[in-house]
Amino acid sequence: MPSAPADAKHYVGVDFGGTKIYAGVFTESLQCIGTARISTKPARGAAGVIERVARCVTDAVDECDLEMKQVKGIGIGAPGAVDSDKGKVIVAPNLEWRDVPLKKELERHLNLPAFIENDCNLSMLGVFVAELDSKPQDAVGIFIGTGIGGGIVLRGELFTGAGHTAGEIGHMVLQADNGPLCGCGNKGCFEALASRTAIFRRIQDAVRDGQKTILTEMLGHSLDDMRSGDLRRAIRRGDKFVKKVVEDAARYAGIAVANVINILNPEVVVLGGGIVEALGEHIMPIIKETSLEHALEGTAAHVTIQASKLADDAGIVGGAVLARKLSR
Amino acid sequence: MPSAPADAKHYVGVDFGGTKIYAGVFTESLQCIGTARISTKPARGAAGVIERVARCVTDAVDECDLEMKQVKGIGIGAPGAVDSDKGKVIVAPNLEWRDVPLKKELERHLNLPAFIENDCNLSMLGVFVAELDSKPQDAVGIFIGTGIGGGIVLRGELFTGAGHTAGEIGHMVLQADNGPLCGCGNKGCFEALASRTAIFRRIQDAVRDGQKTILTEMLGHSLDDMRSGDLRRAIRRGDKFVKKVVEDAARYAGIAVANVINILNPEVVVLGGGIVEALGEHIMPIIKETSLEHALEGTAAHVTIQASKLADDAGIVGGAVLARKLSR
Repeated sequence: MPSAPADAKHYVGVDFGGTKIYAGVFTESLQCIGTARISTKPARGAAGVIERVARCVTDAVDECDLEMKQVKGIGIGAPGAVDSDKGKVIVAPNLEWRDVPLKKELERHLNLPAFIENDCNLSMLGVFVAELDSKPQDAVGIFIGTGIGGGIVLRGELFTGAGHTAGEIGHMVLQADNGPLCGCGNKGCFEALASRTAIFRRIQDAVRDGQKTILTEMLGHSLDDMRSGDLRRAIRRGDKFVKKVVEDAARYAGIAVANVINILNPEVVVLGGGIVEALGEHIMPIIKETSLEHALEGTAAHVTIQASKLADDAGIVGGAVLARKLSR
Repeated sequence: MPSAPADAKHYVGVDFGGTKIYAGVFTESLQCIGTARISTKPARGAAGVIERVARCVTDAVDECDLEMKQVKGIGIGAPGAVDSDKGKVIVAPNLEWRDVPLKKELERHLNLPAFIENDCNLSMLGVFVAELDSKPQDAVGIFIGTGIGGGIVLRGELFTGAGHTAGEIGHMVLQADNGPLCGCGNKGCFEALASRTAIFRRIQDAVRDGQKTILTEMLGHSLDDMRSGDLRRAIRRGDKFVKKVVEDAARYAGIAVANVINILNPEVVVLGGGIVEALGEHIMPIIKETSLEHALEGTAAHVTIQASKLADDAGIVGGAVLARKLSR
């Protein structure tokens, strides 16, 4: 592993998925002083994507008028099962990656220490360190976007389980009989009931069956370019159908939160991700109410359920936290 | 707290619920040398039950031809939310207990150090220390009997969460829409789908609707005295209806195990309790198959799913483990 430059005082956090790579430069006190974004281009394969990640990091550093030697280390979240000890992505289905030595390759490109973690774990680490002022011992993050992922902090530390894959909260089955098909091949997963993909699918299916909605006026009948913000605008304009679909998803999310509370009895459950960012005001009251209804007597007495304010930045903040912790 | 007698070399583990109190005397190496059982009589209230627990402990010690001064400490599992630090049962719905100082009262009766824990946590502790030879860091126990409870060991220690109520796996919702009503007031809980109570209810409802089963020949039409062993006997005698009901419950249990694996990625999931003890040969293959089908790719790679051999003794073994750990 390369050693950190002697006088370096900055950290870079990186979050990437199948669509985009996002990097942020942070000070020792976790203030973000600049970011960069580029597309992932997963079709170029692991080597091509890692080259783009390295470029995004140098772009972000340059954006801040800094040089790479002023960076002490890099923390990066990858969308899949990550062996952080070995520095490898075990499997990342969206990228079609298997056994990719991300840490070693990034260090070779950038000549800086790099540390890797699952993207949702890293987001939770960011939320935990930079946002949760109460400094709870046990906290769970649930990130609802295109898919749904989770990150778990127990006894003050990220918990990743025996095989580094703990926190796959999106694939908790909530509707065992007759649940909708999930991308993982099972039926009734939380992700298949309450992710952006699930919400969009339900709307598109209903429109195909003749359902009227303002969304088709806004976006055309195929609804191809629909985004989370469009749902918010449709609800604000009084679209009861969209409101119902979003509220149904929020109820499933509330049941998922209750399941997590019943199993882990954490102090804090934080919700984040694009859906929570765009629709928080509509869905958070329903999520809270449903989860308190479904948590067993006593289990919810100590729990705070809140939306993350870090939104899309949770991942890069978490990356900086990881790099700050591990860079020497 | 009373101090342990100087030359004492034995520990007593106690497990109690709404029906019976069960105590066992153990050597330093956790060998059980004698037990005693009496009914709980919850209608006599907390003070009356605690007196009976104390009597059951002295009966068990007498059964082994030992005296109380040869006992170093007592570990006891209570059916509800337990604050082990404060030595109190916070709430135990089946007993109608609230805020009962079980530790203090037992110590007063017996003049020995007593330590309390939730019954399923204690069973898991017993399984973890006395049965799991692989000494995993992270393991989850699921106990399927009249109700369903769980116990979680993380990083080698019992994990009970912020409010001492972690592990309420029985109240994880698996069937959010149209699930059967649970004793907790919610619908579709694991316990309402796969506990002995749920299985019995499904059989009794079907019989009332005209379903034929060997069970009515064995036990009469009301099926009032049905026990888990009767289900095993009916299946062995070729009763396809009973087999189907039990297999359906096993499939829900498999989904519950998968949810736990997806969230916590433990090394071991142990199943115990009366249903697993009576029907293990029928249900364990289904539970394993269903859970591996539903665990996300990679998450189940490291997990062993097994039935506990301690059966009904897990709780008293766990009590002895707790007493051995904490008695001074």
